[in-house]
Amino acid sequence: MDEKTRKTEGGRPAAAAAPKRKAASERVMALDQPRAPLSPAMEAYFKKCDEKIGFVPNVLEAYAFDMAKLEAFVPMYNDLMLAPSGLTKLEREMIAVAVSSQNHCYYCVVAHGAAVRALSGSPELGEQIAINYRAAPLDPRQRAMLDFAVKLTHSPWNVEEEDRARLRAVGFSDRDIWDISAVAGLLNMSNRLASATDMRPNQAYHGQAR
Amino acid sequence: MDEKTRKTEGGRPAAAAAPKRKAASERVMALDQPRAPLSPAMEAYFKKCDEKIGFVPNVLEAYAFDMAKLEAFVPMYNDLMLAPSGLTKLEREMIAVAVSSQNHCYYCVVAHGAAVRALSGSPELGEQIAINYRAAPLDPRQRAMLDFAVKLTHSPWNVEEEDRARLRAVGFSDRDIWDISAVAGLLNMSNRLASATDMRPNQAYHGQAR
Amino acid sequence: MDEKTRKTEGGRPAAAAAPKRKAASERVMALDQPRAPLSPAMEAYFKKCDEKIGFVPNVLEAYAFDMAKLEAFVPMYNDLMLAPSGLTKLEREMIAVAVSSQNHCYYCVVAHGAAVRALSGSPELGEQIAINYRAAPLDPRQRAMLDFAVKLTHSPWNVEEEDRARLRAVGFSDRDIWDISAVAGLLNMSNRLASATDMRPNQAYHGQAR
Amino acid sequence: MDEKTRKTEGGRPAAAAAPKRKAASERVMALDQPRAPLSPAMEAYFKKCDEKIGFVPNVLEAYAFDMAKLEAFVPMYNDLMLAPSGLTKLEREMIAVAVSSQNHCYYCVVAHGAAVRALSGSPELGEQIAINYRAAPLDPRQRAMLDFAVKLTHSPWNVEEEDRARLRAVGFSDRDIWDISAVAGLLNMSNRLASATDMRPNQAYHGQAR
Amino acid sequence: MDEKTRKTEGGRPAAAAAPKRKAASERVMALDQPRAPLSPAMEAYFKKCDEKIGFVPNVLEAYAFDMAKLEAFVPMYNDLMLAPSGLTKLEREMIAVAVSSQNHCYYCVVAHGAAVRALSGSPELGEQIAINYRAAPLDPRQRAMLDFAVKLTHSPWNVEEEDRARLRAVGFSDRDIWDISAVAGLLNMSNRLASATDMRPNQAYHGQAR
Amino acid sequence: MDEKTRKTEGGRPAAAAAPKRKAASERVMALDQPRAPLSPAMEAYFKKCDEKIGFVPNVLEAYAFDMAKLEAFVPMYNDLMLAPSGLTKLEREMIAVAVSSQNHCYYCVVAHGAAVRALSGSPELGEQIAINYRAAPLDPRQRAMLDFAVKLTHSPWNVEEEDRARLRAVGFSDRDIWDISAVAGLLNMSNRLASATDMRPNQAYHGQAR
Repeated sequence: MDEKTRKTEGGRPAAAAAPKRKAASERVMALDQPRAPLSPAMEAYFKKCDEKIGFVPNVLEAYAFDMAKLEAFVPMYNDLMLAPSGLTKLEREMIAVAVSSQNHCYYCVVAHGAAVRALSGSPELGEQIAINYRAAPLDPRQRAMLDFAVKLTHSPWNVEEEDRARLRAVGFSDRDIWDISAVAGLLNMSNRLASATDMRPNQAYHGQAR
Repeated sequence: MDEKTRKTEGGRPAAAAAPKRKAASERVMALDQPRAPLSPAMEAYFKKCDEKIGFVPNVLEAYAFDMAKLEAFVPMYNDLMLAPSGLTKLEREMIAVAVSSQNHCYYCVVAHGAAVRALSGSPELGEQIAINYRAAPLDPRQRAMLDFAVKLTHSPWNVEEEDRARLRAVGFSDRDIWDISAVAGLLNMSNRLASATDMRPNQAYHGQAR
Repeated sequence: MDEKTRKTEGGRPAAAAAPKRKAASERVMALDQPRAPLSPAMEAYFKKCDEKIGFVPNVLEAYAFDMAKLEAFVPMYNDLMLAPSGLTKLEREMIAVAVSSQNHCYYCVVAHGAAVRALSGSPELGEQIAINYRAAPLDPRQRAMLDFAVKLTHSPWNVEEEDRARLRAVGFSDRDIWDISAVAGLLNMSNRLASATDMRPNQAYHGQAR
Repeated sequence: MDEKTRKTEGGRPAAAAAPKRKAASERVMALDQPRAPLSPAMEAYFKKCDEKIGFVPNVLEAYAFDMAKLEAFVPMYNDLMLAPSGLTKLEREMIAVAVSSQNHCYYCVVAHGAAVRALSGSPELGEQIAINYRAAPLDPRQRAMLDFAVKLTHSPWNVEEEDRARLRAVGFSDRDIWDISAVAGLLNMSNRLASATDMRPNQAYHGQAR
Repeated sequence: MDEKTRKTEGGRPAAAAAPKRKAASERVMALDQPRAPLSPAMEAYFKKCDEKIGFVPNVLEAYAFDMAKLEAFVPMYNDLMLAPSGLTKLEREMIAVAVSSQNHCYYCVVAHGAAVRALSGSPELGEQIAINYRAAPLDPRQRAMLDFAVKLTHSPWNVEEEDRARLRAVGFSDRDIWDISAVAGLLNMSNRLASATDMRPNQAYHGQAR
Repeated sequence: MDEKTRKTEGGRPAAAAAPKRKAASERVMALDQPRAPLSPAMEAYFKKCDEKIGFVPNVLEAYAFDMAKLEAFVPMYNDLMLAPSGLTKLEREMIAVAVSSQNHCYYCVVAHGAAVRALSGSPELGEQIAINYRAAPLDPRQRAMLDFAVKLTHSPWNVEEEDRARLRAVGFSDRDIWDISAVAGLLNMSNRLASATDMRPNQAYHGQAR
């Protein structure tokens, strides 16, 4: 049963009221954790996802076995990826893809790769960052941003003042450095949760903005 | 000015009402971000920290430039480290230290290392996990838990069904696997934020439970 | 000028007769090497490419500065990827993508990723192997094949009899082992030539078989 | 039966006419693939090898189970290692050894190491590049050449414009950069084929030019 | 039985006269090698240790199965760590800890970490170098010293003239460079012997100079 | 001036009495440390080397700036490499070469590689271990020995009881395990000292036992 079918069948409320085990082929991850009843806030949030992008991202389904965890994850994620920042939404998605590529995270490269393609209007850019961000024709500001995020991913112990200085030299403020670091940090968390649980991306991502 | 001095001077309310730049020597991190006025909820939370452990952990001070970020971080952190789980609090702290050791994160090894010493009553165990968890005399369950968390840290792309099977074989449920993964993920996030910002641990941690 | 425009303008013969420097934006790689006149055999081969897939792969354009090199590369490549073998063409393309992903080669993941999508009819499979082949639902035979190819890529010095034994155990013959190794070897060569020269894939690949 | 014995026994023609399985101790690799009858061109080429260097390199014996593969490999190899180039033959052999040392390839370090000793007249130089090219007293041009080839070997994804700029700064043309990259690429292929098949170097190499 | 108990019970002479197998819980390492009778020189040296620091370091107990090995180790160790040098004793202990941290050696980080805390009077400095020396507020001279020692530890093949030049630029003499290298080398030896034998540090170290 | 010339000129006594700076081309390492007068014991030892192998190994020349260091190094080295042991001298030299190959140490692979060739009578074995010990036709005992030594070299933190168990399973005693570890440890020290100082092997090694 794909997301669209489920939607035409009446969607969330029923599912929330009567969670049941999915067949293996429908599972969003390798852990067997039945969905908890959605809280009203999360009920509304899932509905909003469905309306806005046509499906509920599987990462949310994965967290939905426990409302406390889901309700802690959603605001942190949304603050980092969507709240006002010196970084554009596209830039935050570029960090997400570059970090996830470094970590070879299937779920996150697919989901955030679609976002880079959509927000940039460039399928090539999405592919470049997914495969090797050094192959993308970035301006010095964005290149420094991804250099920092990727170094922070593969060897955080080597990040020092001179790395921050390189960001400042291309115009990033201290607040921007926090945001770059926090988004890179978030993806380093999500990459690991997705890999640990074999989280599967919604199929809809694959064809988006190609 | 150390935490204790500040506390005897009347503490949080004044600081919250009139945040001012700290001298370099007092800074909790390398980014220059003045503290925002604490929201009532965070005001209460900081006060609770002070009462309970005698200081406010610097990671909270670091997040306190923006109430939205602080208020998103605190519940996620507390849910993962303190909420009911198949993992004891000590086990979650053990994961925190093993992951942070792999990432050579000064802030996190110091802060969570103190927690392992305190919760286990064993200074040796704290040191062993901080330096090389393989040197600790762990039972098979805890050893498998740390093997999983550390592998997930250094090469998440290699984590597969057989890794989950090893956890199940020593008695962990799928829900426990989520919790191990989520705590390991959280620390992979915090390690990077701490390294990116040169976050400094409160001095009080060093002597705790030695 | 994209491939399609060039084709409607009369295509290869003119280009072959009068090679001229391309503007930077049209270059297929970062080295400035004007195309040599195509030999009759290569003239025919390029025409065949154009007719069959609608464009000449840029790797051939990159080699076309020297007919001896182009004429040595084409038969080796075609023998390995297209000649009769115990491996299907899809399997050889899967090896190509898995190796190129390990080497983060933009050109090769894009070009061979399109082939995997086209030959398998599965956009997901193409993405899985491009990002992390361990996330693909492979049967044991194909999984062993990619495990061998990827190990041979990242640490060839560790490949030993027990690795060959694993391939034989899932049904591969010694001849098949040669073919797996030779395709993995070829891509390890091409990945390096592409990275060394910043070779750019034809744009047409991006949208193929999505 | 060693190469010299075989030669005095009348050599190739008989072997070509009646290929038979070799005993394990005589095998050139761990795969059991009987030699195909040599084509006239390859017959002549093997004879030429025998006359010129006293034996047929085992890599050719290994490929000789299939004339299409042998006839594709020989011209590509000879073009890269022997055709006119801005790089001397010694320099191409130096690249071959440095790359093979990085990949710990027994066959290739032995075979190409002998070539470096012979062409340079310096047994020390051969050993230095085989063990650690940084220990060799190279001029800046050759040092830059090997730095590029070795970086391209261990992390091709990090090779960028500034790496090419370093080669140009010591006098290499774009054509030379292609040749450096192509030789490094070829050895990255051969190293993997040799490791995958446990290819054994002819014994004659060991004592050459010591 | 801890060191102090043993001491009040009459200490070394008896033990030396009648070596006997220790119970597993008392063993200083995972190898079962009974102590040899101490030579008079080593008898005196062990007594001196006991008087000066209150216990005999377990590394000496581990070597004490063979007087030739113990008597070869002690002077080399003492010359490197204690003899006159352009490096202070603290600096040599800092190298010891930084190298041992890189090698995740439980025994050596514990034993030498205690020395750094004691000699520097700074528990923080000990922790910083044990976890990540880059987090310690070092002057340029000591920073260069540890950068060299740690690089020499993780990739000795990359150490070249420019690395020595960096040491000279901050004031180190050639003799000092030898001493830095020799201490780093010694610890690379001891780390491996300790890891290979699961050597356990004396408990007394844990609480020292906190 | 090579070793042999120096010998016919009257050799050590003069040199010891009047140490003088060598020209750059004659230096045994990149550090400028004039030789100290040899102590009588070392005078005799150097003479013995000269008589027995025709030259004084440069590592001894390198240490000869300080008699305390030279006199500490020599007995430790000789005990480990030459004293009675469950390991043959050849086996200890095999460990030395395998470790030094892992560390790409020019001095040590050359000097100990010559010893393996001489003691085994097999030039191939020397080359195999110098390039990739996995390519050598070792019996299970020696293979386990080198596996342990090489793992201890590249990731000592991962060596555990199961690694020791593998050695015991092929017949090594606990004392043998100490010796394997100590030789591997010694070479990890010497490799670093040689790399740090750019120590040059005596030319005589290159042609020995080919």
